Amino acid sequence: MEVSWEQSVTDSINTIYLLFSAYLVFVMQLGFAMLCAGSVRAKNAMNIMLTNVVDAVVGSISYYLFGFAFAFGEGANSNPFIGTTFFALKDIPNTSYDYSYFLYQWAFAIAVAGITSGSIAERTQFSAYLVFSFFLSGFVYPIVVHWVWSSNGWLSPSSSKLLGSGAIDFAGSGVVHLVGGIAGLWGTFIQGPRVGRFDAFGKPVPMRGHNATLVVLGTFLLWFGWFGFNPGSFDKILVAYPNTTDQGNWTGVGRTAVTTTLAGSTAGITTLFGRRLLVGHWDALDVCNGLLGGFVAITSGCSVVEPWAAIVCGFCAAWVLIGLNILTLKLQFDDPLEATQLHGGCGAWGLIFTGLFAKEEFVIQAYNSGEAGVSRPYGLLLGGGWGLLGCQVIEILVIVGWVSITMGPVFFALDKLKMLRISVDEEVAGLDISSHGGYAYAAHPEESHPRFYADYMRIQDQNHS
Amino acid sequence: MEVSWEQSVTDSINTIYLLFSAYLVFVMQLGFAMLCAGSVRAKNAMNIMLTNVVDAVVGSISYYLFGFAFAFGEGANSNPFIGTTFFALKDIPNTSYDYSYFLYQWAFAIAVAGITSGSIAERTQFSAYLVFSFFLSGFVYPIVVHWVWSSNGWLSPSSSKLLGSGAIDFAGSGVVHLVGGIAGLWGTFIQGPRVGRFDAFGKPVPMRGHNATLVVLGTFLLWFGWFGFNPGSFDKILVAYPNTTDQGNWTGVGRTAVTTTLAGSTAGITTLFGRRLLVGHWDALDVCNGLLGGFVAITSGCSVVEPWAAIVCGFCAAWVLIGLNILTLKLQFDDPLEATQLHGGCGAWGLIFTGLFAKEEFVIQAYNSGEAGVSRPYGLLLGGGWGLLGCQVIEILVIVGWVSITMGPVFFALDKLKMLRISVDEEVAGLDISSHGGYAYAAHPEESHPRFYADYMRIQDQNHS
Amino acid sequence: MEVSWEQSVTDSINTIYLLFSAYLVFVMQLGFAMLCAGSVRAKNAMNIMLTNVVDAVVGSISYYLFGFAFAFGEGANSNPFIGTTFFALKDIPNTSYDYSYFLYQWAFAIAVAGITSGSIAERTQFSAYLVFSFFLSGFVYPIVVHWVWSSNGWLSPSSSKLLGSGAIDFAGSGVVHLVGGIAGLWGTFIQGPRVGRFDAFGKPVPMRGHNATLVVLGTFLLWFGWFGFNPGSFDKILVAYPNTTDQGNWTGVGRTAVTTTLAGSTAGITTLFGRRLLVGHWDALDVCNGLLGGFVAITSGCSVVEPWAAIVCGFCAAWVLIGLNILTLKLQFDDPLEATQLHGGCGAWGLIFTGLFAKEEFVIQAYNSGEAGVSRPYGLLLGGGWGLLGCQVIEILVIVGWVSITMGPVFFALDKLKMLRISVDEEVAGLDISSHGGYAYAAHPEESHPRFYADYMRIQDQNHS
Repeated sequence: MEVSWEQSVTDSINTIYLLFSAYLVFVMQLGFAMLCAGSVRAKNAMNIMLTNVVDAVVGSISYYLFGFAFAFGEGANSNPFIGTTFFALKDIPNTSYDYSYFLYQWAFAIAVAGITSGSIAERTQFSAYLVFSFFLSGFVYPIVVHWVWSSNGWLSPSSSKLLGSGAIDFAGSGVVHLVGGIAGLWGTFIQGPRVGRFDAFGKPVPMRGHNATLVVLGTFLLWFGWFGFNPGSFDKILVAYPNTTDQGNWTGVGRTAVTTTLAGSTAGITTLFGRRLLVGHWDALDVCNGLLGGFVAITSGCSVVEPWAAIVCGFCAAWVLIGLNILTLKLQFDDPLEATQLHGGCGAWGLIFTGLFAKEEFVIQAYNSGEAGVSRPYGLLLGGGWGLLGCQVIEILVIVGWVSITMGPVFFALDKLKMLRISVDEEVAGLDISSHGGYAYAAHPEESHPRFYADYMRIQDQNHS
Repeated sequence: MEVSWEQSVTDSINTIYLLFSAYLVFVMQLGFAMLCAGSVRAKNAMNIMLTNVVDAVVGSISYYLFGFAFAFGEGANSNPFIGTTFFALKDIPNTSYDYSYFLYQWAFAIAVAGITSGSIAERTQFSAYLVFSFFLSGFVYPIVVHWVWSSNGWLSPSSSKLLGSGAIDFAGSGVVHLVGGIAGLWGTFIQGPRVGRFDAFGKPVPMRGHNATLVVLGTFLLWFGWFGFNPGSFDKILVAYPNTTDQGNWTGVGRTAVTTTLAGSTAGITTLFGRRLLVGHWDALDVCNGLLGGFVAITSGCSVVEPWAAIVCGFCAAWVLIGLNILTLKLQFDDPLEATQLHGGCGAWGLIFTGLFAKEEFVIQAYNSGEAGVSRPYGLLLGGGWGLLGCQVIEILVIVGWVSITMGPVFFALDKLKMLRISVDEEVAGLDISSHGGYAYAAHPEESHPRFYADYMRIQDQNHS
Repeated sequence: MEVSWEQSVTDSINTIYLLFSAYLVFVMQLGFAMLCAGSVRAKNAMNIMLTNVVDAVVGSISYYLFGFAFAFGEGANSNPFIGTTFFALKDIPNTSYDYSYFLYQWAFAIAVAGITSGSIAERTQFSAYLVFSFFLSGFVYPIVVHWVWSSNGWLSPSSSKLLGSGAIDFAGSGVVHLVGGIAGLWGTFIQGPRVGRFDAFGKPVPMRGHNATLVVLGTFLLWFGWFGFNPGSFDKILVAYPNTTDQGNWTGVGRTAVTTTLAGSTAGITTLFGRRLLVGHWDALDVCNGLLGGFVAITSGCSVVEPWAAIVCGFCAAWVLIGLNILTLKLQFDDPLEATQLHGGCGAWGLIFTGLFAKEEFVIQAYNSGEAGVSRPYGLLLGGGWGLLGCQVIEILVIVGWVSITMGPVFFALDKLKMLRISVDEEVAGLDISSHGGYAYAAHPEESHPRFYADYMRIQDQNHS
């Protein structure tokens, strides 16, 4: 059978759009690696970067073998809880899914473990990391994807319509970020804080990351990648909306890029001034984290809210993060990357926000291709009733529950088996020298501090003579 | 009204093209951050990176609220000097502008303040930065955009046709780079040089940036981003040229990417050998700046000149930069990033270059969609008369004038109010420790120099005993 | 003549696809720069980065002037060995080649010299670098391109059909990587190892790179760029395959991105566990190199093999690299970046792999647009006969031979003329201080180690008193 020219054009356009979006999402893995590396002490930089590389390579294989199948498998014995076909890309491509769709979803899957690896940084055995990472990205995460994003998931806004609505989590404030954050919460909680993080009186001792340049580099790369994450989640760009003038998914895609930018920016500014008031200086690293908190929060509703609402979203996300950071310090909870607070806290806020501010017209565009005569719940504050907000709350609850009953026992078992945390000696020496054969940086004093080194040699000579 | 399939295809293609170009332009913000960070001393790295992040987040909000409106607003009371509609994206999308266009222009707007922040690096109060940045990207820059790029600007080559031509500043050698450079000129001039930059006899003392790797990283990222900046400025790729074989904006876009590459490369090579002759070694950082000077210069004419002309453009740009750098040293003018010379000087040369070398056929393609029978001024050296060159000179003059009468007083007032420059003590200590809560790098001697550190400890013991 | 709407749409789609792929391939230059910088000692960081920048800028001009002509020139006196038209882009654009095609090929050309520069790092005169780089990317490499990729090359799978097949080297395991690797082999061999790399007994002395963060940054950027390198090599995305349901080059492009990802990931995992067994720790840098080896290997067959075969490809590539690294240490062969082993060894394995695993259907899709009734050799292990494998072996042999007889004499002559290697004194001092005017990093002890510095000052005072 000949492929029609119209079909070829449509497929080509949508494939370009989805593949290049996938490439951008992949950049987030690099962003995480740099953000994490800069936020830890130099003695653990190699370790955290390796975990980020391993996320990507292990995730590729596990998502190929069964992750994608659990998430999007459909067919005769398909069900709303777990996918059962497409293992190892069997029967791909088909009329529903092409390779580009797999690649796009793969880029999401490898991000999840990256979030959690931040929470347990600087004190975790590398083999424990391999275990939890494989389990999280290969099983726990894909199941949630199936519920919310697959065509027959029980929480899906396009098929099941729980409470007449289904949950709207467009690019995954809950599916990706809350999942990663809750997993990190359990890892952090079971491991306890890093050695020396809190003094004998429970007061926090600052443990500055070793390189702020890497943090800023990572943050900007994540922003860049988020342009693939959020606008890319339309999956297809060539879908026209009826009853409009020249509008279609291309309009939605652009609007999503704008709401994403505005939410992150607002959260960044709010954090800049908020932290200035609280700590007395302009803190670049706080602004970076605030910015990311805004992105995490808008990820759920990015396609269904007005730009002005995105500003509300970002403003609140900044305070959610600031508040949770104060709370965790009080509780002596030590997440080196603030991943629990940032991805967990702002992710949950993002789901609520969507339940409050989703606009009817945009919901119908994003989930019913702008079909005329459709009526469905939307944001409570815009008059759309409780159906959507209810589903959003349900999504939060089931994610917290599901991740807790799966990842909690995994971390607990690793801990009991002495496979989770490294020894105090190793922690003080640093993971790089104890597990990875050497430090990330090999400086030669004579190279970097020539004058200083010369003086040092002279002193040494004086002492020897 | 149903959107036709043809319209959907056209909109989808143009949106993909423009949005992904916008994402590339956004990467330039990261490029600037890394370039700036590497070019300053370590004690000011956090400060300069924060200013780059703040550019982006503050620019997002100010451009959303009124910057875009000043630049592209049109309607009943529209005028050639300032836009008056579309505040806070009201009435967007419409048949002229979709969200993707806003996002593309936003990415340009945040770049301008980034240029200027380089000029005043290492000695400016952070609050002064917030003031000038908001004013520059929210008001001064959008006005220039309106003049040159909006559909009813008085200098616009598509509408008003000053001198029968209008100025051709395709991607903004003048609108973006000269504006940023002149603002930097005033900031630098009013502040004066950094402490210790010139000795008692007026001889310059080298103040090397702390990390050349970051400079190279930033330069390559800027190159990458320029592929969005210049070729992306066609706005639409699906526009066919009549009277040609299979040619259209897609050909122009590719040619623009090629001219951009050749101009930058030629400037880089010229600087490599030129500086080798002048200073006696092969200087990587000079090559990076030369390369960027070539990009800045070709930005005006990238779409309307032949590839061979781009080589001429880059060759001259390198010498413009080398010459201005020698001149500024003589004048004890201290712009840590050479932004005034690079963006201002090469930007102005780029406008002149376009007036000399623009090719008629390409001008008609870029500004009249290749329409047949059109006649308009083009490059003087190609026989196109004085109309275009005249407009180019006018653009330079009005930009220098406008930015001077707006930004000059701003910097002057900040200075008089003691809000511009930090104290000498703070400058010696570094902005990071005085304003941002700590250094960008937290090194632990025992980590980075284990053997050195062990010896040092031994010496210390000997001294104590 | 009016361009039809269908043609405009097709050209626009294919141009977007090819140009953005070219931009990604360009990012590989940045990836190489960061990978190389991190892998050498700090005292040579500036040098290696400058060579990467110079690759790009010199390559731009030489490829514009004659490289592209040698590679793709066609016309009346065209021949299967060297192209003879299109010098300085004369007659471009034409019905075969648009500017976007030139830009895509340019990005490949500048990568080749980057590979070789890694092999001769830390001990080569900068002027020698300029000579070999110009010769390699301007002449040696384009000739190989003409043989394998041009429409009338003698090894081309689309035209000449040597052994009824022609060699399949889709994105250049041989054309790019083997060429760069063999050139590096000769450079390394003629120069000999770095001072101090092997002790008096021939035992290797570790020479750690100075910054593992840069290595990971470079590796991820190369991965990102490979999404342009491999899937982009289809050149056109809007080509439908007859006799399929909705399939076309867009399907092939997606599949290529997937095989690329799987091969690299498998090689990474294999290296992670393989090196753990061999050296006893989890080595991040080995994983990075393993990953890249997998990408190099799949580059030849990425478009014509099943995803499962890509896993086989990556698994073997990892062992090829591990084995060659052991062998080169025994032979006291010192390639600082392992470029010979990685690009040469895995590149050769990639060509063989394609001869074994290429699938008939995919070969016909990639090289005959999926035409019905075509029969041609494919992978030996899939029953496709010896024709393809024979051509793959021939490609390896001619590349090894051609690069040896051209680049061998160049390096030999440079060596005889005392223009190749720097003096021992300069090598110990480092290239940055001897040739480039200073180190890449300017650290001020009082900034980076405040407490350490204070103690040091105190000791110094004691010694003085």
